[in-house]
Amino acid sequence: MTDKTWGYVTPGIPDAWFEKNGVPLTREEVRCLTICKARLQSTGVIYDIGAGTGSIAIEAALLAGAGKVYAIEKNKRAGELILRNAGRFGVNNLHVVVGEAPEALGGLPLADRIFVGGSGGRLKEILAAAAEKLRDGGRLVVNAVTIETLAASVQTLAALGFGEIETLCLNVARIEPAGQARVWKGMNPVYLVAGQLRNGM
Amino acid sequence: MTDKTWGYVTPGIPDAWFEKNGVPLTREEVRCLTICKARLQSTGVIYDIGAGTGSIAIEAALLAGAGKVYAIEKNKRAGELILRNAGRFGVNNLHVVVGEAPEALGGLPLADRIFVGGSGGRLKEILAAAAEKLRDGGRLVVNAVTIETLAASVQTLAALGFGEIETLCLNVARIEPAGQARVWKGMNPVYLVAGQLRNGM
Amino acid sequence: MTDKTWGYVTPGIPDAWFEKNGVPLTREEVRCLTICKARLQSTGVIYDIGAGTGSIAIEAALLAGAGKVYAIEKNKRAGELILRNAGRFGVNNLHVVVGEAPEALGGLPLADRIFVGGSGGRLKEILAAAAEKLRDGGRLVVNAVTIETLAASVQTLAALGFGEIETLCLNVARIEPAGQARVWKGMNPVYLVAGQLRNGM
Amino acid sequence: MTDKTWGYVTPGIPDAWFEKNGVPLTREEVRCLTICKARLQSTGVIYDIGAGTGSIAIEAALLAGAGKVYAIEKNKRAGELILRNAGRFGVNNLHVVVGEAPEALGGLPLADRIFVGGSGGRLKEILAAAAEKLRDGGRLVVNAVTIETLAASVQTLAALGFGEIETLCLNVARIEPAGQARVWKGMNPVYLVAGQLRNGM
Repeated sequence: MTDKTWGYVTPGIPDAWFEKNGVPLTREEVRCLTICKARLQSTGVIYDIGAGTGSIAIEAALLAGAGKVYAIEKNKRAGELILRNAGRFGVNNLHVVVGEAPEALGGLPLADRIFVGGSGGRLKEILAAAAEKLRDGGRLVVNAVTIETLAASVQTLAALGFGEIETLCLNVARIEPAGQARVWKGMNPVYLVAGQLRNGM
Repeated sequence: MTDKTWGYVTPGIPDAWFEKNGVPLTREEVRCLTICKARLQSTGVIYDIGAGTGSIAIEAALLAGAGKVYAIEKNKRAGELILRNAGRFGVNNLHVVVGEAPEALGGLPLADRIFVGGSGGRLKEILAAAAEKLRDGGRLVVNAVTIETLAASVQTLAALGFGEIETLCLNVARIEPAGQARVWKGMNPVYLVAGQLRNGM
Repeated sequence: MTDKTWGYVTPGIPDAWFEKNGVPLTREEVRCLTICKARLQSTGVIYDIGAGTGSIAIEAALLAGAGKVYAIEKNKRAGELILRNAGRFGVNNLHVVVGEAPEALGGLPLADRIFVGGSGGRLKEILAAAAEKLRDGGRLVVNAVTIETLAASVQTLAALGFGEIETLCLNVARIEPAGQARVWKGMNPVYLVAGQLRNGM
Repeated sequence: MTDKTWGYVTPGIPDAWFEKNGVPLTREEVRCLTICKARLQSTGVIYDIGAGTGSIAIEAALLAGAGKVYAIEKNKRAGELILRNAGRFGVNNLHVVVGEAPEALGGLPLADRIFVGGSGGRLKEILAAAAEKLRDGGRLVVNAVTIETLAASVQTLAALGFGEIETLCLNVARIEPAGQARVWKGMNPVYLVAGQLRNGM
C-alpha cells in the first residue's frame, strides 16, 4: 500500500520521507545530482549496487517508469527496508537482489545505467564487472566518500574504457534552526564520478 | 531546427551545449538542483524570471512537456539568445517575454512554479509580484549569489506566506586538467532558497 | 598551575586541549584564520567580545605576550571556564570581564585589536562601541555563523569607517575514522569579516 | 632593500604583496593554515620543498626569526624570484637551494619542520627523503591539489612512521566586486596533510 506519493517528474524526495532504520541514506541533494549525472531514460535496465535504503533506486524507478531497476544489497535487512521504502512510494518496477557484488550481478540482464554506492572494499572488481554488464553508451555513476574510493574510481573507469569522465566534489550546507538563531550546517563532502561507456568499443 | 537532442528524463544538459554569447549561464549542477527543488510536474505554467541564457527555462520546458514556460528577460538580445538555445533543443513550449519584472509578469497566466535568477536589484518587488501570481501550493526557487539577495530572499519568502523554506549553499568543485596534472577547480558558491506557497492561505 | 604548554610561535592549539563544558568552541582552523586576519603584534590591547571558552583570547594572549587581552563574556560560568583554560596554558596576560557588550567595554583601555564572536543579537551596537574603542589603524575581526550577522557585519563595518574589508566563507572538512574506513566530515561553514580602522579619520 | 614590512607576529601577508611573475602562489588563507599546522618555533631548521614564489618560506622565516629556512626550488628563475620576495620583506634567514628534491636535500642540515608544496611527480621519494632528514618530533605539512598527491601523502606518511596525521580539505570563498554587486568567488579546494614524526622511533 502506498502512503506517500511523489507526483513530480524531477527527483528530490526529502530525506525524512524514507525509512532509514540505521541504514545510511544518500542525502537529497547528492541523490539528485547522482541521478542527473546518470541521464536516465524512461526505459531501460538500471542497477543500484550497494543500494542501502534504496533511495536512489526508488527515485530512478519513478523516473524510468517503463524501465526495471535492480537494487543490489548484501544485507538482507537492508533489502527488506528497500522493499518497504519502495512500497511507500508505490514503486513496482524495482527488484531487490540480496547478495554481494560483483557475484550478485551474474544473473541480471544487461544494464543501461549503473549506480555504485557502497562497495564493501571491492570497488575495482565491482567496476570491472559493472563495465561488463553495461551496454555500449551506457552510463555509470559512483558515489565516493573516501579518497581511496575516489582515486580508485577515477583510475578504474578510465582503464575500463569509460569516456567523458567527470569528477565532482559536492559540499552542501543547509540553514537549520539552532536555538533562536538559524545557522549553517555543513554536510559531509561527497565525490561523484560519472562516465559513459564508449560506443563501438 | 534542432541540432541537439536531450533524450533524457532528467535535467543536466552540459554547460557547453548552450550558446552563451557573454550572458551568464547557470551551471549544470546548480541548474539541476534548482530544477529539482522546484519539483516540476509534466504540466503547468512555469516562469523563469531573469532567464539569462534560458538554460533553466529550457530544461524545465523539456521536463514539463505538457506545460508552458515563460522566460522573462529584460535584455532583448538575451531574449533572442534564449530562443536560439530553445531551438537548438527542439523546445516549443517556451515563450520569451522581453521585459522587466515585476511589470512584465502582468499579463501572464497564473504560475505553478517560479524560478528567480537575476533580479536587477528589485528582488523584493519581484518576489511579492511572483507570490501574487503563484497558485496555492506552487513552488518558487531563488538562485542568489550575493549575501544581500540571500538575506532578502529568506526574509521576504517567509513574510509572503511561503512555507517549507529551505536555504542551501552549494559548493561544487570539478577535476579539470592543468598541464599534465588534474586539479580541482572550485566554482563560485551559490545559494538556493526554495519555498512552497501554503495551501488555503 | 599549567598542565599544557604551547611552545610555538603559531596559533593552532588542538580543540581537544581546551575544556569546553558545553560552551561553543571556535574550531582550530577557524580560530587560526581569525587570529591571522587580526594581524597581531607582540604588544597592545586586544578584546575578545563573546569569548566563549576563551580559545581565541588564549591564543592571542600567547602570541601577544607583551600585550593585554580582555575576554568579555556575559555568562559567569563561561568566564570561569576561560580562566581555567587560561591557567591550563600558563597564560597570565588575559583578563576576564564578566558582563554584556557593549556596556562591558566601558571601562576598558583603548584597543588595538578586537575579535567579535558571540553578540547575543546586539551586533550593530557592539560594532559601533568597538569602533569607538579601537585605535586608528586597529583591526577588528568578526566570526559570523548566520547570514543575518554576516550581512550586518559587512554593512556596519563599512558605515563605521573600516577599510580593507575582507569577507570570507570558510568550509573545512577533515578526514575522520568511520568504522574501518576514513571519511570526510564537513564542519559547519563560518564567515569571517575583517577590517582595519582607517588612519586619520 | 626592504620595501614592505610585515610587523606582525602572525602569518597572513596578502597575496598581492608578493611578486609572482607567473609562478603559482600559495594563497593567503591556505598559507596561514599550512604554517599553523607546522607549529613553528622561533628557532630551528625549516625546509620548504617546491617553494614556488617563496611565500611560505618567507612567512616561516619571519616567524622563526632565530631559525634557518631552506627554500628548495628546481626552477632557477623561481629561485631568483624567492630571493627578490625575501628581500622585499627584509628576510635574511632564508637560503634558496636551486635543485630538485629529493637530491637537493642531501647537503642540508637536519630539519625541524618541512613544508612540501610542489613535488614534480616524485612525491613518495621526496617524503621518504624528508622523513630521513626530519628530527624526531619534527613536523611535516604537505599541500596537495590533486587526489593522487593527497592519497599518496596520506599513505606514505603513515608508512614512514608519522603520527597524529591530520587531513583537511579547505574551501575558501571571498566576496569580490562584480560590476555593481559583490559576489562570492570560490577558490580552488586544497588539501593539507600534516604529521609529526614519532619520538623514539
